Amino acid sequence: MVVDQVFSGEVGLAHWASNTRETAIQGMLRASSSPGVISFALGLPAPELFPAVQYSHAMNSILLSDCHSLQYGPPPEKLKAHIAQLMKTRGVECKAEEVFLTAGAQQGMSLLARLLLDPGSSVLVEDLTYPGFYQAVESLEPRVLTIQTSPVSGIQVDEIERLLKQGTKPALIYAMPNGHNPITVTMDLATRQRLAELAQEFRVPIIEDDAYGFLYYDHHPLPTLKQLAPEWVCYVGSFSKIMAPALRIGWVVAPRAIAGKLPIVKEATDINTGTLAQRAAAVYLDQGHFPGHLTNLRQQYRARRDFMLESITRHFPAGTQCEKPLSGIFLWVRLPWKIDTRELLRRSLREANVAFLPGEAFCHGKVLHNSGCMRLNYSNCSIEKIEDGIRRLGSILRSFGRCSDTVTN
Amino acid sequence: MVVDQVFSGEVGLAHWASNTRETAIQGMLRASSSPGVISFALGLPAPELFPAVQYSHAMNSILLSDCHSLQYGPPPEKLKAHIAQLMKTRGVECKAEEVFLTAGAQQGMSLLARLLLDPGSSVLVEDLTYPGFYQAVESLEPRVLTIQTSPVSGIQVDEIERLLKQGTKPALIYAMPNGHNPITVTMDLATRQRLAELAQEFRVPIIEDDAYGFLYYDHHPLPTLKQLAPEWVCYVGSFSKIMAPALRIGWVVAPRAIAGKLPIVKEATDINTGTLAQRAAAVYLDQGHFPGHLTNLRQQYRARRDFMLESITRHFPAGTQCEKPLSGIFLWVRLPWKIDTRELLRRSLREANVAFLPGEAFCHGKVLHNSGCMRLNYSNCSIEKIEDGIRRLGSILRSFGRCSDTVTN
Repeated sequence: MVVDQVFSGEVGLAHWASNTRETAIQGMLRASSSPGVISFALGLPAPELFPAVQYSHAMNSILLSDCHSLQYGPPPEKLKAHIAQLMKTRGVECKAEEVFLTAGAQQGMSLLARLLLDPGSSVLVEDLTYPGFYQAVESLEPRVLTIQTSPVSGIQVDEIERLLKQGTKPALIYAMPNGHNPITVTMDLATRQRLAELAQEFRVPIIEDDAYGFLYYDHHPLPTLKQLAPEWVCYVGSFSKIMAPALRIGWVVAPRAIAGKLPIVKEATDINTGTLAQRAAAVYLDQGHFPGHLTNLRQQYRARRDFMLESITRHFPAGTQCEKPLSGIFLWVRLPWKIDTRELLRRSLREANVAFLPGEAFCHGKVLHNSGCMRLNYSNCSIEKIEDGIRRLGSILRSFGRCSDTVTN
Repeated sequence: MVVDQVFSGEVGLAHWASNTRETAIQGMLRASSSPGVISFALGLPAPELFPAVQYSHAMNSILLSDCHSLQYGPPPEKLKAHIAQLMKTRGVECKAEEVFLTAGAQQGMSLLARLLLDPGSSVLVEDLTYPGFYQAVESLEPRVLTIQTSPVSGIQVDEIERLLKQGTKPALIYAMPNGHNPITVTMDLATRQRLAELAQEFRVPIIEDDAYGFLYYDHHPLPTLKQLAPEWVCYVGSFSKIMAPALRIGWVVAPRAIAGKLPIVKEATDINTGTLAQRAAAVYLDQGHFPGHLTNLRQQYRARRDFMLESITRHFPAGTQCEKPLSGIFLWVRLPWKIDTRELLRRSLREANVAFLPGEAFCHGKVLHNSGCMRLNYSNCSIEKIEDGIRRLGSILRSFGRCSDTVTN
């Protein structure tokens, strides 16, 4: 940190860059890759379920049949057509040319933020939300208006309505209707409808982050916000959780004025996405294996979710609360004590070799103290590892609880 | 345009985004992909020289041996180590951990711009330069200070010195010492040394765009700016022109304070680069084919360069000027008439099916009128196509010259 400051003074970094620090997720990526650590920390899919062999065949077939597959080129229409078909299953009618390909969902959000935010703009986000969204807007230095997140119903639409009626004009609202990260809530239909109506009435664009929209387990999915307010919603989708993250393929379906500018801001950012991975993905999708792959993913992840919930019941202290998520790859655990789960994490890593993300990692600024909350990922570990890790974490919790009873309660 | 404005009014785009338009290069990408067009317009490598078979083997071997190759993960150390070795051949001593991987050179510039520019910052660029640099800074709305580019010696260091001595404090200087795009000049040693000294003396970081630095044809390459002023130069490199563009692999070697922030701004932009393509590139480099590949590329491109120069001598009007470039993949042609080469391009596309980029495409704002200049790419076409295209373009030029003699001279 000292070195940083000395050098910053010399080279002259931008204001926001002098102050920015890496997210908890990056630190965790390093900590949890140590040998022997059972990690529930990150949003990693199950590597053994990646369609590696089929994707390898797809890659081979295009590399050996057409040397232009390695050339600069426009994003492949075939992949966009496949995505337009997938969007139908999310209730969104769009043409292939309305699908804009990005390097994952994060790039989609980053490009949209740059198109929507002026200096001094404000953004409306929940007080507990995906830190990647803050990162996407950070360098633009917007005013961040936080609205409360209920651990039961998620985004508080009443509060949004109140702010908008008071005359607040945010440049955008960020929302995760399916499998909210981190609190895992799936928004009910009435909330979706009200949010869509507010966007239309007050003319505020919504970024709908649907990274987990295809991973639903117990229900037919509810309408997307994009379906309910197509003119005001920028839908952000991704293959990272349902095909493979290393491909870096996401997409945006945006209202027309925004859609027209996306290619320009993307060209400025990285010219174009890796069309090789995109073409191989199109060939893989052509082969027709994807619907079966997705069904299998849902079955496997549902089993892991259910098993982790059972393990928690068995090993965590009485009074621990955890809703069963309808979508996504995380559990949101509320302990019966108001403790700082960052301290719990340090102990858990040191004494039990188990990693998770503390609730504190998901709030902007210093909103959340002694949350007693933690986010646990269930997609990345086998049933055996889930049992082992939750048992170990439970034993740390019991000893930690005994100490903290006297300290913080 | 009318539609755009109506919708922009509704959705509320950021100020810069309402005004931005796609570059000439994007329009040209579409125009020149029409069947039958011989295109000298874009900076495309020769697709038949891509190492497609070897890269395919590399890709196969990692996909089939390790399912984690499709997972999120840190940038591969092995690739960084290979790049550190390559940097030695450019005179730069750096460790693998000092190499920062990006999605191509454009992303490198875009990330650096975001780290260095505050609202109201100014940037120092030449009046004829790579439009991708303007794009990289556009959304940050800096003050752009242009300095004159000499078609013979390139960047005018005297003018930079004058500006800096007057007290101008730019946030960065953008420079292309090797195979300047578009004017193809390779900076001489004295100019490099003076520029490096000015950066140090006036504490101004330089972005050194070395996209063509490995494609030199007639000489041992001169020292990079990075070598001459390591503390003040952000070196931007790329495999796009020397391996394959669709891989989207570039890199940055930056001074320490900037290097520390690059992972943070990159995470915000797209989480991480496609590590699959990066791992496959590392395996390809392991196999030892790359030095031979690079030697072959230089031989082939030198032959195409020399042949295009000869063709121009045969088919273009007397008085046409064109220096032989020491590096890169372009010729910069100055016609003996002061004509608008955008009009020439329209006719060339319509009547001869030949594309190029007009000189006007490379200047910021409205500096260049009736330049009589054009940029021709020689790497992408076979000798036969070069002959055919230059002959056809020459015949358009002769008829155009006759008309424009009476109109503009």
